[in-house]
Amino acid sequence: MANFDYDLFVIGGGSGGVRAGRMTASLGKKVAIAEEFRYGGTCVIRGCVPKKLFVYASQFPEHFEDAAGYGWTVPEASFDWKTLIANKDREIARLEGLYRKGLENAGAELFDTRAELVDAHTVRLVGQDRTVTADRILIATGGRPNPHAALPGHELCISSNEAFHLEELPKSIVIAGGGYIAVEFANIFHGLGVETTLVYRGREILGRFDMDLRRMLHETMEKKGIRILCHTIFDWIERRGDGRLDAHLSDGQTLATDEVMLALGRQPNTEGVGLEKAGIEIGPKGEILVDAYSRTNVDNIYAVGDVTERVSLTPVAIHEAMCFVETAFKDNPTSPDHDEVATAVFSQPELGTVGLSEDDAIKKFETVDVYKASFRPMRHTLAGRDEKMLVKLVVDGTSKRVLGAHILGPDAGEMAQLLGIAVKARLTKADFDRTMAVHPSAAEELVTMYQRSYRVENGKRID
Amino acid sequence: MANFDYDLFVIGGGSGGVRAGRMTASLGKKVAIAEEFRYGGTCVIRGCVPKKLFVYASQFPEHFEDAAGYGWTVPEASFDWKTLIANKDREIARLEGLYRKGLENAGAELFDTRAELVDAHTVRLVGQDRTVTADRILIATGGRPNPHAALPGHELCISSNEAFHLEELPKSIVIAGGGYIAVEFANIFHGLGVETTLVYRGREILGRFDMDLRRMLHETMEKKGIRILCHTIFDWIERRGDGRLDAHLSDGQTLATDEVMLALGRQPNTEGVGLEKAGIEIGPKGEILVDAYSRTNVDNIYAVGDVTERVSLTPVAIHEAMCFVETAFKDNPTSPDHDEVATAVFSQPELGTVGLSEDDAIKKFETVDVYKASFRPMRHTLAGRDEKMLVKLVVDGTSKRVLGAHILGPDAGEMAQLLGIAVKARLTKADFDRTMAVHPSAAEELVTMYQRSYRVENGKRID
Repeated sequence: MANFDYDLFVIGGGSGGVRAGRMTASLGKKVAIAEEFRYGGTCVIRGCVPKKLFVYASQFPEHFEDAAGYGWTVPEASFDWKTLIANKDREIARLEGLYRKGLENAGAELFDTRAELVDAHTVRLVGQDRTVTADRILIATGGRPNPHAALPGHELCISSNEAFHLEELPKSIVIAGGGYIAVEFANIFHGLGVETTLVYRGREILGRFDMDLRRMLHETMEKKGIRILCHTIFDWIERRGDGRLDAHLSDGQTLATDEVMLALGRQPNTEGVGLEKAGIEIGPKGEILVDAYSRTNVDNIYAVGDVTERVSLTPVAIHEAMCFVETAFKDNPTSPDHDEVATAVFSQPELGTVGLSEDDAIKKFETVDVYKASFRPMRHTLAGRDEKMLVKLVVDGTSKRVLGAHILGPDAGEMAQLLGIAVKARLTKADFDRTMAVHPSAAEELVTMYQRSYRVENGKRID
Repeated sequence: MANFDYDLFVIGGGSGGVRAGRMTASLGKKVAIAEEFRYGGTCVIRGCVPKKLFVYASQFPEHFEDAAGYGWTVPEASFDWKTLIANKDREIARLEGLYRKGLENAGAELFDTRAELVDAHTVRLVGQDRTVTADRILIATGGRPNPHAALPGHELCISSNEAFHLEELPKSIVIAGGGYIAVEFANIFHGLGVETTLVYRGREILGRFDMDLRRMLHETMEKKGIRILCHTIFDWIERRGDGRLDAHLSDGQTLATDEVMLALGRQPNTEGVGLEKAGIEIGPKGEILVDAYSRTNVDNIYAVGDVTERVSLTPVAIHEAMCFVETAFKDNPTSPDHDEVATAVFSQPELGTVGLSEDDAIKKFETVDVYKASFRPMRHTLAGRDEKMLVKLVVDGTSKRVLGAHILGPDAGEMAQLLGIAVKARLTKADFDRTMAVHPSAAEELVTMYQRSYRVENGKRID
């Protein structure tokens, strides 16, 4: 360690930073970590976790509706937003405590302050107005919602950050965006009884996912009562005389609404970190540029997680952190693996996916076999719920390897996780076929699609 | 076909018989099928399907309870058993219609009558009092609940068959048995508000499943309010003066209850099928003995499904039927594969499993590594539901192959289905470890157990 105060200084207490700090400290290294807001980062504090709790909350009205077909008479239920917020906040505080405790128990030193680089080995603890030194530094400052400052009236809008702390549940909301955050919040607000409109500039929501799922999710959301306007954007937002907002769209429409939420992408937190002082290179979106081992252009400084804009997902940040610890402190250079990452959109119905979409597979493989099945999940039958589930396998017609698995329907996220094992292991369609079904389940459809739906050869559908 | 009326005559219109009949007819063969009760068999008519619909019905009270923590105030709901039964019956009738239609569309001839063998090529249609002949015959008559005729008062009891059609929902029920039917119905009745007691002679419910899951399910069921009495059996049942029943137990207790349900195993339907006339051999439990290709000792007669007592599950019967068609009509002898069959118990919480339990693995492998995690699923947090989930991997310590995967918790059946692909393909723990997590999910625990919980070497736990 020579003359440094710490073996490792971590800037940012989110999923990546906390994991790296905890693991390194548990190796007996001297570790400090600084977080200016709350430990847990986007995932715990204003992302995955509170989002999923909101999803659960917003699903109850469908449970109440569905009960009738099963013999239940449920008097009208009422919802109190403040109770949800308070209970959610208590759970988040509990999780934050676990993150802090994990670090402390491992022997890391926690600073509740912003930290900025002074040079390649020196960090200024802003809240304490002093500097410390470290042999290695890990930047894990994450990202934040793009404020879309070019939009007139953007300051009247909320982002997902504020959505977790609204004083009152609005009667109506217009959400701009077509990514997973926009889609998830549209379903949450709609489920909680808010009149919800989604405005998206593209031709279909959830770009980069498989088109069949995107279309069916779009249709299902509209059937539930969510208005979706594609091919249009906000021109400007303004406050109305009655205190509400007018969202003026590029197609000439004006939507009067209580809240406008912008979910137009996220951007890396690289301002005010002192990157320039340490000479760290950033990319065009402000993201920190790293090599295959998460190392910046400055030898002793690494970066993981959303601030690097590789794959902005919690488990990926954690994986990058663990690879960083192997590389930097265990003499075992390990490159994070970003291929075939299973992922879920907690829309309603849920979307789960791993590997290539049909369109992407067609670009990469000469022959692609598609297997798909659409059916009503059994739980929807007595409920009388007119919602279909879709499962789809994209298979290399030559090697028969399953290139992609895609699900829209209840528990799709759980399914994608376990299909991820099979796809990552490069299993073939025959491996799926020889697996006995579990009946009655929805997932059994994935192992009983014996006949392909069609084949695509050199980009052309041939049967 | 020579002088026979049919290429194939199928006795029994359950999952196995219908699949074999439909597939064979669609090959252009002349096929007849006889069913004395209703097409669809145990699975559709009085097994898997209505059972799972009942499970859904019985889960609503927990949804109503859980809603409070998420901000919902739900006035007390009421339940009407007759509505559930009527809606369930309508769905079952719809599915039966699909089974009939599938057969008809494929060109099979349907007889709504009991059919009995007269000799190896002749079948008597009992309802029509005539005989027909067939080149090949498939027996797929299924099974039924063991009536336990040796129990005094057994005639006062119901089985799962009657449970689907009770006139009224009882206030209390005592269920004898520790298998999946007993356990599932205990949870169903309890969920619907019935005071429920399970009586089982063994030391722990759900023999043959992994002991950790059995214990935790037992505890969770008791915590919900289901009374479970192990190590005891019914001595006799009698009608009380007030019209209710007294179940006298071997431990001296007497339980007064509205209904007694016997779920003490099932037995093959081999009486009155004319097996002796065709010279077909049966085993000690009355099951039809078949070779690896589902062929009986009589050359042109095959049997599939529960009547053969191999693995009594719907997907297995269907698989056996499909192998039979390959063998008998497509000149492609195919032996059904009964290894590593994933399966689910639709208890509450659900249990899903594939491959070897820890105890079985220890018997077969010198070194066994166990990975397990127990945690509260996120959906239970705000609900305040004190119920844990358990995931467990049993790994060969030498080859690192995952020998068994076991889950207790929400959606365990769906998870077992997809873990089935990985276990069947003989994937290793490293294949699980290199799969990226999907967050937040429950299934992610299965790919993030990097440290083993303990190792068992030559039957002895060593760390």
